[in-house]
Amino acid sequence: MWIINRKLLKSSFYITDLKLCSIRLFNNEKFPWIILIPKRKGITDITGLKSRDQKILMQEIVFCSKIMKKVFKSKKLNVEKIGNVVPQLHIHIIARYNNDVSWPLSVWVVKAKSYSKLKLENTLSKIKFAFK
Amino acid sequence: MWIINRKLLKSSFYITDLKLCSIRLFNNEKFPWIILIPKRKGITDITGLKSRDQKILMQEIVFCSKIMKKVFKSKKLNVEKIGNVVPQLHIHIIARYNNDVSWPLSVWVVKAKSYSKLKLENTLSKIKFAFK
Repeated sequence: MWIINRKLLKSSFYITDLKLCSIRLFNNEKFPWIILIPKRKGITDITGLKSRDQKILMQEIVFCSKIMKKVFKSKKLNVEKIGNVVPQLHIHIIARYNNDVSWPLSVWVVKAKSYSKLKLENTLSKIKFAFK
Repeated sequence: MWIINRKLLKSSFYITDLKLCSIRLFNNEKFPWIILIPKRKGITDITGLKSRDQKILMQEIVFCSKIMKKVFKSKKLNVEKIGNVVPQLHIHIIARYNNDVSWPLSVWVVKAKSYSKLKLENTLSKIKFAFK
């Protein structure tokens, strides 16, 4: 059975499920940030997915990217597969702006900040609506 | 006509050309690091590629990932589309180790170090051979 890593689960909020990936909002109010987690057991790397799933992953990255750009009015996305801390395969899609707190550097150079209750509700409802 | 951004060109060395992407070694001897640059004019985002090219991009990411893991004996890759500084679409594939200089953090938290002449020759010849 496929389950989400506990750290990923704790640091994010459910948005929706696509064919391959579970989509979650990353708990960092500094950036609009989602993660795509392929629902496949024991996979830590894109090369570990079957080629059919690799193709779907690309389609879902593109689909989610378009939603992120639209919902958060961003022209620039960072799309990253890191997984140094949590090995379970997951892809970050982060909307960037040339006035955000770490621009033009990576989001990883600044500390995350948890969402306030109000901002979380607003953000989740906006993005859930866009995925409908 | 498609050309490589000057900053990308200056900070990397030619390895080979695949169907969609030009493959280059990034000039940072701290990490085995290649970049894939789709040979398409004016593209800054994966969503800007035609869907056929998106599919090929995933295939070439997987192909290059396997080579990186094999050549550099790495179990962990970071695969990243950032482009905050250089807008032209390019994908970083970086081999990581649990004893590298920024582990488990992002490669972007440490300063790059240019290759020495000897190490560059060795690395380029190893990786060019693997792509043959």
